[in-house]
Amino acid sequence: MITAEVIVDLIKNLPTPDLTHTSGSLQAVATKVLPPELADKETLVFVSKMEQLETALKAQAPIIVAHKSLSIPQDVPATMFSTPNVQLAMAAILPLFDGKMNRFNQEQKIHPTACIHETAHLGENVCVGPFAVIGEHARVGNYATIGSHAVIEPFAQIGDHTLIHPQVFVGAHCEVGAHCELHPHVTIGADGFAFAPTREGVHKKIPQIGKVVLGDWVELGASVTVDRAALTETRIGKGTKIDNLSHVAHNVVIGEHCVMAAGFKVAGSTKIGNHCMFGGDCVVTDHVTICDKVMVGGRSGVSNDITTPGAYAGYPLEPLRDNMKTLVSMRHITRMKKEISRIAKHLGMKEEE
Amino acid sequence: MITAEVIVDLIKNLPTPDLTHTSGSLQAVATKVLPPELADKETLVFVSKMEQLETALKAQAPIIVAHKSLSIPQDVPATMFSTPNVQLAMAAILPLFDGKMNRFNQEQKIHPTACIHETAHLGENVCVGPFAVIGEHARVGNYATIGSHAVIEPFAQIGDHTLIHPQVFVGAHCEVGAHCELHPHVTIGADGFAFAPTREGVHKKIPQIGKVVLGDWVELGASVTVDRAALTETRIGKGTKIDNLSHVAHNVVIGEHCVMAAGFKVAGSTKIGNHCMFGGDCVVTDHVTICDKVMVGGRSGVSNDITTPGAYAGYPLEPLRDNMKTLVSMRHITRMKKEISRIAKHLGMKEEE
Amino acid sequence: MITAEVIVDLIKNLPTPDLTHTSGSLQAVATKVLPPELADKETLVFVSKMEQLETALKAQAPIIVAHKSLSIPQDVPATMFSTPNVQLAMAAILPLFDGKMNRFNQEQKIHPTACIHETAHLGENVCVGPFAVIGEHARVGNYATIGSHAVIEPFAQIGDHTLIHPQVFVGAHCEVGAHCELHPHVTIGADGFAFAPTREGVHKKIPQIGKVVLGDWVELGASVTVDRAALTETRIGKGTKIDNLSHVAHNVVIGEHCVMAAGFKVAGSTKIGNHCMFGGDCVVTDHVTICDKVMVGGRSGVSNDITTPGAYAGYPLEPLRDNMKTLVSMRHITRMKKEISRIAKHLGMKEEE
Repeated sequence: MITAEVIVDLIKNLPTPDLTHTSGSLQAVATKVLPPELADKETLVFVSKMEQLETALKAQAPIIVAHKSLSIPQDVPATMFSTPNVQLAMAAILPLFDGKMNRFNQEQKIHPTACIHETAHLGENVCVGPFAVIGEHARVGNYATIGSHAVIEPFAQIGDHTLIHPQVFVGAHCEVGAHCELHPHVTIGADGFAFAPTREGVHKKIPQIGKVVLGDWVELGASVTVDRAALTETRIGKGTKIDNLSHVAHNVVIGEHCVMAAGFKVAGSTKIGNHCMFGGDCVVTDHVTICDKVMVGGRSGVSNDITTPGAYAGYPLEPLRDNMKTLVSMRHITRMKKEISRIAKHLGMKEEE
Repeated sequence: MITAEVIVDLIKNLPTPDLTHTSGSLQAVATKVLPPELADKETLVFVSKMEQLETALKAQAPIIVAHKSLSIPQDVPATMFSTPNVQLAMAAILPLFDGKMNRFNQEQKIHPTACIHETAHLGENVCVGPFAVIGEHARVGNYATIGSHAVIEPFAQIGDHTLIHPQVFVGAHCEVGAHCELHPHVTIGADGFAFAPTREGVHKKIPQIGKVVLGDWVELGASVTVDRAALTETRIGKGTKIDNLSHVAHNVVIGEHCVMAAGFKVAGSTKIGNHCMFGGDCVVTDHVTICDKVMVGGRSGVSNDITTPGAYAGYPLEPLRDNMKTLVSMRHITRMKKEISRIAKHLGMKEEE
Repeated sequence: MITAEVIVDLIKNLPTPDLTHTSGSLQAVATKVLPPELADKETLVFVSKMEQLETALKAQAPIIVAHKSLSIPQDVPATMFSTPNVQLAMAAILPLFDGKMNRFNQEQKIHPTACIHETAHLGENVCVGPFAVIGEHARVGNYATIGSHAVIEPFAQIGDHTLIHPQVFVGAHCEVGAHCELHPHVTIGADGFAFAPTREGVHKKIPQIGKVVLGDWVELGASVTVDRAALTETRIGKGTKIDNLSHVAHNVVIGEHCVMAAGFKVAGSTKIGNHCMFGGDCVVTDHVTICDKVMVGGRSGVSNDITTPGAYAGYPLEPLRDNMKTLVSMRHITRMKKEISRIAKHLGMKEEE
């Protein structure tokens, strides 16, 4: 349960003034957040279209955060906030309703069943769940949370305020930054996939003695895997977010503030710049370099360097605009084939092999 | 070890009479089920072709379940059953040979190492494996099984008779129906992937305060991930089955009795109807709607609404029939390209840019 | 810390003489291995190009392993080794620097929190981590390591010297060979995906009563899933390596010494020969047969039998050489479409439907 006043206080602490109280009582109370069509008298609602606003008003939603382009009728009973960016307003306000940290509540901050090596270092206010395993000389930063059944291997490091969900694996010597969030079943620091074939076609394992380094504010979805480098470091830069079931191979370097949708896969030693975005199910081959500010559409395959910022898609990869035409043309390929035969026949030309 | 009599008893309890005892002693005994080519004197065999029947008879298989189209020789020594649908007969009979529940045998139904919050509610005859964690106010239905190392977070609900395999994660407030089966490393209720970009290109997390709701009889393969909704519910309907390493994003609604083969990925807020089927490695983009009874071939990409039931395939998606032609034509594209040049040259036409 | 002498001793035990000490003191000492550009006075360096050798010498690397084609300057201060195959030399030498087994160090070989059934059989020198669960009649071979939170279900078998990383699942009755390595979150023996549709469109589960059998020296990456067979065995042959987030369906038989890069998916009952290689994100349909020594490029889809060894790629699959042309031609498809229209118009031909 929060009051409009709490939001006003929150606004004061925002780095940028993306949210303004425009009208209504600060005593208004909301107990939940729902889309306009599900709102009731206890719901805080975000609206970016006029119909949504009308729906929310009809439902008597007590607090409404509206895009600033909407013209608010006079004398609305709701307490109104205005924002130039509804998504950012959600990012600011929803933490007030997010009970996530309650999941980790327990009588003792360090659960008595956790198995923590005597040489491990735990910062202040660390929370460790049932059956978590923290190895020798591992370091866990202040206010970090280690979920139940998580395994933090020897010499691994977890930064301040980082949230490690249950059943996550962080391998030996790997480093996770501050304010990171790793969802269940993430694997950090499995071996890179490297084998030396002998003349007999047998594959000898090349031990992977490097590590993984994740910058601050990195978020990895459920069952993401990041392999340790052969000798050095696999790196994911500050602020980069990678969705579920993605794979980052050994020696890859991903820059800062990138966003990769689910099913992203990047092969060994590839370098990706800052502020790149990938749609779902993209694949990037090994040993390529992608510059900053590249946007790649879903399902694309990147097999060459990208040296110019911009939007791309397809496999083979093309500028997005061209790929949209390619997709349209592909539907005509059978007709095109017939048409070519017809023309050749019309001209009395024999088909060539 | 079972006798033919046990099968006869089983038939009496089947809702539809898909299986008939046609000849032979009810005292016949089988200790295992194998394909005809591996059968011996202790094997129950399912056969749908005449050669298989001959192989089974030669191997002296004691019990044979044959498709009703096969003409059974007189005086066969085996005990014979007849069925119009061999697969359904397998679904009916194989449970007699399935030792799966034995895996969860232990001296005490609730393993003494399990960590169960005092406010959690466990139904009758619940089995909880070693090191399982069940959070505050979580509810586990009657005859449900919670495998070792599974994590059922606070306020989550598990329906009656549901089987949660080891190392599964069910996040706070998520609801799993009755008679469901979740295979190892499934993640229910990780955060949806949602970030609000600032002007500086930094991605602010939008907290995901919704949940996941799975209907009854849902089965999810190993390492499947289903994200919680932003505000409301990500839903998978009754009887839907999703294979390994699949991903269901936040706010997605999947209908009833769908089947998705391995590697299925569906992006946020998409709606899929009832009785849909997807071949392996399909991708569905965000915010599209797919009607009931749609069949999509393997490796396809769905990026627009589908409003007519039927079979589709490809990327871009086409009716299956057209896509089969497209795949054939694609192998000719290089020849087509040459042919166009040849014709243009023949006509004395210059190439256009 | 190792001396050059240790490497000389190692060479004596190599089956093939792929490494020779060519000059310098056997007392030379290295404490780590890094690429040439990061080397210092304590680094062992592998070099395959002249520039790398120069960089390593400038950095005063104490031990250098060089490809035999490089001409080594006289009087180099480093201790030099020569090899015809740098990768194999890495495979031989890096184990000296690989601290992986230290991750599993603990005061007692069998961690006191591990939950081991009294009927389970553990070989000599077995290491079992915290909270591992080993079921009734399971067998763990000599010198095997069972990581923390791993679950080895009843009647499963783990071969000698096999390394099971934390959080791995090995289902009942499944067999893992000797010298295998299973990375975190691997699932061996989840149910195959098999349902019998009724006339009402409901999918009845067909119990999967078979198992999984992995040969010796198999390595599976993080979150790989291998389903148990319907009745018999899903098999992966000796020496085969499969990268992260791959899926092997029920009844599949994969031969020996294959290599599958990340995201590999193979559907039910398919047979793959020996010495096959698949690039990343390949998909193989069900019930096909692939002969020995087939190489398939990344992102390919195999939907028919392959009966001739060789290199293939694409979807539909083509010989690699043809597919490279197809990929080039595809970028021209929009231009081709226009060109066909232009020609038809030039000829006064009407478009056909």
